[in-house]
Amino acid sequence: MAKIAVMGHGVVGSGVVEVINTNRSHIAKRAGEEIEVKRVLDLREFPGLPYTDLFTKDFQDICNDEEISVVCETMGGLHPAYEFTKSLLESGKSVITSNKELVAQKGAELLKIAKEYNVNYLFEASVGGGIPIIRPLHRCLAGNDIEEIVGILNGTTNFILTKMIDDEMPFEEALALAQKLGYAEKDPTADIEGGDACRKICILAALAYGTHVYPENVHTTGITKLTLADVDYARSWGGVIKLIGRAKPVENGDVSMMVCPMFVPNESVLSSVHDVFNGVLVKGNAVDKVAFIGRGAGKLPTASAVVGDVVAAVKEKGTSISQTWKPADRNVVTDYKQGSNKFYVRVVADDPTTAKQLIESCFTEVCYLTRENQPENELAFTTGMMVECEARKAAEQIAKQGIKVLAKIRILDLI
Amino acid sequence: MAKIAVMGHGVVGSGVVEVINTNRSHIAKRAGEEIEVKRVLDLREFPGLPYTDLFTKDFQDICNDEEISVVCETMGGLHPAYEFTKSLLESGKSVITSNKELVAQKGAELLKIAKEYNVNYLFEASVGGGIPIIRPLHRCLAGNDIEEIVGILNGTTNFILTKMIDDEMPFEEALALAQKLGYAEKDPTADIEGGDACRKICILAALAYGTHVYPENVHTTGITKLTLADVDYARSWGGVIKLIGRAKPVENGDVSMMVCPMFVPNESVLSSVHDVFNGVLVKGNAVDKVAFIGRGAGKLPTASAVVGDVVAAVKEKGTSISQTWKPADRNVVTDYKQGSNKFYVRVVADDPTTAKQLIESCFTEVCYLTRENQPENELAFTTGMMVECEARKAAEQIAKQGIKVLAKIRILDLI
Repeated sequence: MAKIAVMGHGVVGSGVVEVINTNRSHIAKRAGEEIEVKRVLDLREFPGLPYTDLFTKDFQDICNDEEISVVCETMGGLHPAYEFTKSLLESGKSVITSNKELVAQKGAELLKIAKEYNVNYLFEASVGGGIPIIRPLHRCLAGNDIEEIVGILNGTTNFILTKMIDDEMPFEEALALAQKLGYAEKDPTADIEGGDACRKICILAALAYGTHVYPENVHTTGITKLTLADVDYARSWGGVIKLIGRAKPVENGDVSMMVCPMFVPNESVLSSVHDVFNGVLVKGNAVDKVAFIGRGAGKLPTASAVVGDVVAAVKEKGTSISQTWKPADRNVVTDYKQGSNKFYVRVVADDPTTAKQLIESCFTEVCYLTRENQPENELAFTTGMMVECEARKAAEQIAKQGIKVLAKIRILDLI
Repeated sequence: MAKIAVMGHGVVGSGVVEVINTNRSHIAKRAGEEIEVKRVLDLREFPGLPYTDLFTKDFQDICNDEEISVVCETMGGLHPAYEFTKSLLESGKSVITSNKELVAQKGAELLKIAKEYNVNYLFEASVGGGIPIIRPLHRCLAGNDIEEIVGILNGTTNFILTKMIDDEMPFEEALALAQKLGYAEKDPTADIEGGDACRKICILAALAYGTHVYPENVHTTGITKLTLADVDYARSWGGVIKLIGRAKPVENGDVSMMVCPMFVPNESVLSSVHDVFNGVLVKGNAVDKVAFIGRGAGKLPTASAVVGDVVAAVKEKGTSISQTWKPADRNVVTDYKQGSNKFYVRVVADDPTTAKQLIESCFTEVCYLTRENQPENELAFTTGMMVECEARKAAEQIAKQGIKVLAKIRILDLI
């Protein structure tokens, strides 16, 4: 019988207790022994639960309990999750986390401590909710040079975009609906501005490329400025708009990284990732393309990932199976302005005929798009591959001539 | 430095050597030490390779070499792969295999031996080629009660079906093209009759449900009788025809299993798995639905899966991480005739009006489909949920009245 503890009885933490209790016999078969929750840490009161007597407000009750070998950290936030995790690892306990903020900020350090103490720090639940992606990426695809990772990593924004695409619901209305359904928080900034997706692509990049990547170094754009006009043009182009996190190694161990809305062609499997689902596409030089799709958030899906890691930690106790990565002794993220992309651009111009001449002289391989009820003074087009800073310069040039750029969205090259 | 051997220098075996040599430094980082191929077993001659001097025709050169800790079995077939694997495990070497035939027939026994000798028998490459599915299923989803597994598990048939669907190419022509492109063998029986897909769904079922499942107990139908007319009706119904392997637990540890062509609705992610790609959809009671999509065969993708397992075996030497399952002391596969499905049926009838009356009295919830250039004497319809033996009885009843049943295909309930 393995005894574990859960820190933080919120959505995910309570899900972990539920999954462990509901699937007890399945889990025992796979872990080789029964797994029991011995303690739950939370400062709040939870009277009337079948396991109310397991609650404690004192972290030391868990840290000092030698019977507890694995602890799930489902508190979120940096502090005190960081200090608690460190103490637990140093006490010889494995820690399983769903805390993407902590992994994205302190992953390299905590993994090093875990290795020193021959325990595990596992974080499958920190990216893609219930989707197995962490272990498949560093373990099953260990034989590959990972050439690119592209993912829809935030369920809230994907729900909003799906509403905009399928139901022609404007952004604000779709956000309000997401909040009503509990998919978005009252303060939705981390989701809609791309911060959450950014942390996740940083974790995947660190895992694939071996060096810690700090979210603050990654150029990140959210979905707040997207309009139904852009959604329509994406459709007529043959695709959909998705919030994409992308990581791609370049020379010298550097990594090109970006989080932004992108035109995704219908031929890409990512275009069919709807609603709150997440999808990650990995390209390896041996395996070619592999896609992982599933629920990227939610109580039980996220708990599923946590419990999978608990089983691994129980089954492989005494070994440190965690994949480690180096601390970032320098910023390995390349300057996004030197990267190249194809773009979609939407403008208004008083004289579209003259505007077209100017546009074609500033942008490469201009290809115009149309939509139903297109205003006479609106133009939309896609470009060929352009260096980011040159595309910006081109936009500034046409703006100087009175052509107002309303939208500029990158196009995902089908990987 | 870990030394390994490869047995069988065919498509997959030569791919393993290539991946290990090409990605040497990536692999060393993930395994914690360098991995080197010390020996290759093959009865044929391979002059002129950079590693020709590593070849041997004598199995004992590998089995008796104490420096070799991991052996890749990429020979295929039951014998001598079975005897070799057994000897290697008993000599304390881990064995990595891509041999689905051997795992499907002898998996329980070989896993038991591996456990006894504290080594690993790993088989990620035996299902879904390069797609990570074995480890995600038993490890990442270990916290789940697996409620259903549905997969497109054979790339050859999926290529043929894609040609029939996208290019309106008749079956025979698509098969010839697949053979020309090297996707199908000269004797394509194992692919087109469903035997290959059957072995794979048996391996997934054993892993998920804990008991060995023999392929010969699974009702298996191939794709040889499908026509472009059926493909057209599937399109007008709102889906595509795919060769599906399905496993679903019922009571008492029994499992309902089937391999057959099915109507797959366009809303299912499996409908967008094209060409030689494979896709597996797993439903767990915590994670809900998760999909894994990628190349289900081919030299480097399959080698990717083998090398991933090699890294695991090297990294976790001295522990037996393999998931085991019980030998089948009885047939756990339920009688498919007692299962229920919705059906698509296509018939010819001299008098369609009278025929409709009879059809509606024999089948439930009949819903007619149409297609372009539909012959006047042809009828096609879908049914409601019917017990298999009742659907068969209904087909026999209308046949007795001179209505000829040309096709009867199951419909995949969207899981």
